[in-house]
Amino acid sequence: MTDKAIVIDWGTTSLRATLVGGDGARLDQLETAQGISTLKAGEHEGVLMAALSGWFTAHGPVPVVAMGMITSRNGWVEVPYVSCPAGVADLARGTIRRSLSNGAEIVFLPGLTDQKLEPFPDVMRGEETQIVGHGLGEDATVILPGTHSKWARVEGRRIIRFQTFITGEMFALLINHSFVARGAATPPVDDPLAFRRGLADAAASGAMLSLLFAARTGVLAGRLSAEEIRSYVSGLVIGQEFRQAREAGWFSPGDHAVIVGNDGLNALYAIAADAYQLHATTPERDEAVEGARAILEASRQVYRGN
Amino acid sequence: MTDKAIVIDWGTTSLRATLVGGDGARLDQLETAQGISTLKAGEHEGVLMAALSGWFTAHGPVPVVAMGMITSRNGWVEVPYVSCPAGVADLARGTIRRSLSNGAEIVFLPGLTDQKLEPFPDVMRGEETQIVGHGLGEDATVILPGTHSKWARVEGRRIIRFQTFITGEMFALLINHSFVARGAATPPVDDPLAFRRGLADAAASGAMLSLLFAARTGVLAGRLSAEEIRSYVSGLVIGQEFRQAREAGWFSPGDHAVIVGNDGLNALYAIAADAYQLHATTPERDEAVEGARAILEASRQVYRGN
Repeated sequence: MTDKAIVIDWGTTSLRATLVGGDGARLDQLETAQGISTLKAGEHEGVLMAALSGWFTAHGPVPVVAMGMITSRNGWVEVPYVSCPAGVADLARGTIRRSLSNGAEIVFLPGLTDQKLEPFPDVMRGEETQIVGHGLGEDATVILPGTHSKWARVEGRRIIRFQTFITGEMFALLINHSFVARGAATPPVDDPLAFRRGLADAAASGAMLSLLFAARTGVLAGRLSAEEIRSYVSGLVIGQEFRQAREAGWFSPGDHAVIVGNDGLNALYAIAADAYQLHATTPERDEAVEGARAILEASRQVYRGN
Repeated sequence: MTDKAIVIDWGTTSLRATLVGGDGARLDQLETAQGISTLKAGEHEGVLMAALSGWFTAHGPVPVVAMGMITSRNGWVEVPYVSCPAGVADLARGTIRRSLSNGAEIVFLPGLTDQKLEPFPDVMRGEETQIVGHGLGEDATVILPGTHSKWARVEGRRIIRFQTFITGEMFALLINHSFVARGAATPPVDDPLAFRRGLADAAASGAMLSLLFAARTGVLAGRLSAEEIRSYVSGLVIGQEFRQAREAGWFSPGDHAVIVGNDGLNALYAIAADAYQLHATTPERDEAVEGARAILEASRQVYRGN
């Protein structure tokens, strides 16, 4: 046993690994293009052992903690979702532990489900680990921007509920495939003022299916340029996320929230929060690695004596 | 001059033409794949004359009335938008008349714009002709389903305002390109019960960016099958259109509306209207041809003496 750990985030298109010291220091990192979409059943362990062989040689059988799509139905070991409300100990009890061929343990992290959400239970896989990494010590509303953004509520050291918004995916659909956003400049241009215009227009209308047509009518009216379309549409959809989250009861003007995540969107979300009078902080840490280590540590209690 | 007319709907991917008798009877129809996206500037008249040569030979220089993308910035003759409120005479004054090489007149129809819509003026090109074809004699709320659905209000024999919802485009984006709707059965399956489930779920939530995730969570929960996804998503987005239209003031429960158009969606929209306590009729006529003839007839007043 060592106090070092290897945290892997193994997704559809890549395998990323971080070697962490017992004090939390990042000792090394690596990334390969061997995402799970490139692998067949039975190939996962071999790929992982090859990727980590240098670290195992240098540091011995360091425990591995695995998250990402590798823990899903299409991955290596499917880990069932843990139900809200859930704290670190609940998530640790939901892990699945295996041994690698060199004797190192590998702990697969669970996702989280909110059974109360209508029309179907909501799910996350990875974001709960980021929330744990941020810390459950203070009650907070946590926003995790992304392809499928999450809004989550932490109370009493547990994640008590959450809700998904497909904002990032909607933006990609509109920019890459839609008529309404055709004509956007290539290469892509980021225009902070156009983003704020989109936010403001989103704040004025809840008719999202109508509002999105503005990406086209603005061009026809000569009031939106090719260089502005991308950021304007981003403002429209992120603005709608905040508007809809507010109407779903996630915040009222004057409330506080924390924006957590590594999708490069935290600064935009902070601007959006400000536009909705939501006071947001953006800690900008590597919450996933912190959370994975915390759940791994808690899993020691679960597996003690095994 | 003849009392016959040729109505052409010339779009991005096809040229469709209808030969209409003075009594309104359809005498003949043709369609070619020579959409405007296949043509360069200067090629339009030659293609049109070739397509219509048989009719011109048989019936003489029958007047042609043209609508569709052929009247847009990317077409043959760009016809500026007429502003709401607008009746038949206003639309006729907005037409542009040219002569073909055989002496036949060709009248290009204008689109319509609602300058009052925020954040930018809304536009339609073709739907106003369908509304005229339906008839302006009675005050009515008219719904035109499609890629970009329109809701329009007719009062005092004029179209006084309208609003676009990109419902059909949203459905296509989700079904063809999104993660949330991946897994839908191929070939496509239409499931009326799943459509109604989508409508019901859309009625229960205005958080559209969150609601659409149900196409995925329903599958994960084992409560939505691959065969149901397509119709369920259709119900979600059409249901959102009605919900958003209601909130934008287009109707209240108990009101009446008319569903007009040829996009094959009228029956689904009638079901959706019913789910929102909106009493809708679906006349199912070829309103575009009727409307084009009415505007052509009215344009006689405009061009008399030219």
